[in-house]
Amino acid sequence: MYIVLVYDIGEKRVGRMLKLCRQYLNWIQNSVFEGEITEVKLKELIMQSKKLMNEEQDSMIIFKSRNEKWLEKEVIGKEKNELDTLL
Amino acid sequence: MYIVLVYDIGEKRVGRMLKLCRQYLNWIQNSVFEGEITEVKLKELIMQSKKLMNEEQDSMIIFKSRNEKWLEKEVIGKEKNELDTLL
Repeated sequence: MYIVLVYDIGEKRVGRMLKLCRQYLNWIQNSVFEGEITEVKLKELIMQSKKLMNEEQDSMIIFKSRNEKWLEKEVIGKEKNELDTLL
Repeated sequence: MYIVLVYDIGEKRVGRMLKLCRQYLNWIQNSVFEGEITEVKLKELIMQSKKLMNEEQDSMIIFKSRNEKWLEKEVIGKEKNELDTLL
């Protein structure tokens, strides 16, 4: 399946969360990721995320689409992909 | 159509952008919005956003789905909707 993942995480935990998500997905904006992922891998990612998160303060939203074609993407302004090379 | 909108905007402009997006969409996380919107209204929103944005520094990504049913949403951790009542 194809997913878009966004998080809002406390500053102390955000570095670890970024590192984790990049193991599974493509980083496309500050706290936004997208990519093709299997059900099993997504479960793994959610489980790992929950270990990092403070579930009272932090939030993560996952939008799932069965097919990437059903989701059209439009970028306005700066394309942030170059950040991807910094880490 | 149903859209998810995420932005990464300089601090000086973020307040105005939030206010603008909330006129068209539901605010679901820090810089994430979703909602049903017409083609015409979306064009209007993009036009207004471009006026606010610094297109060299700021970024906005819009994911469009023809039908909300094609996009399943999962929230992990805190549901941020209560923020919506603060402004």
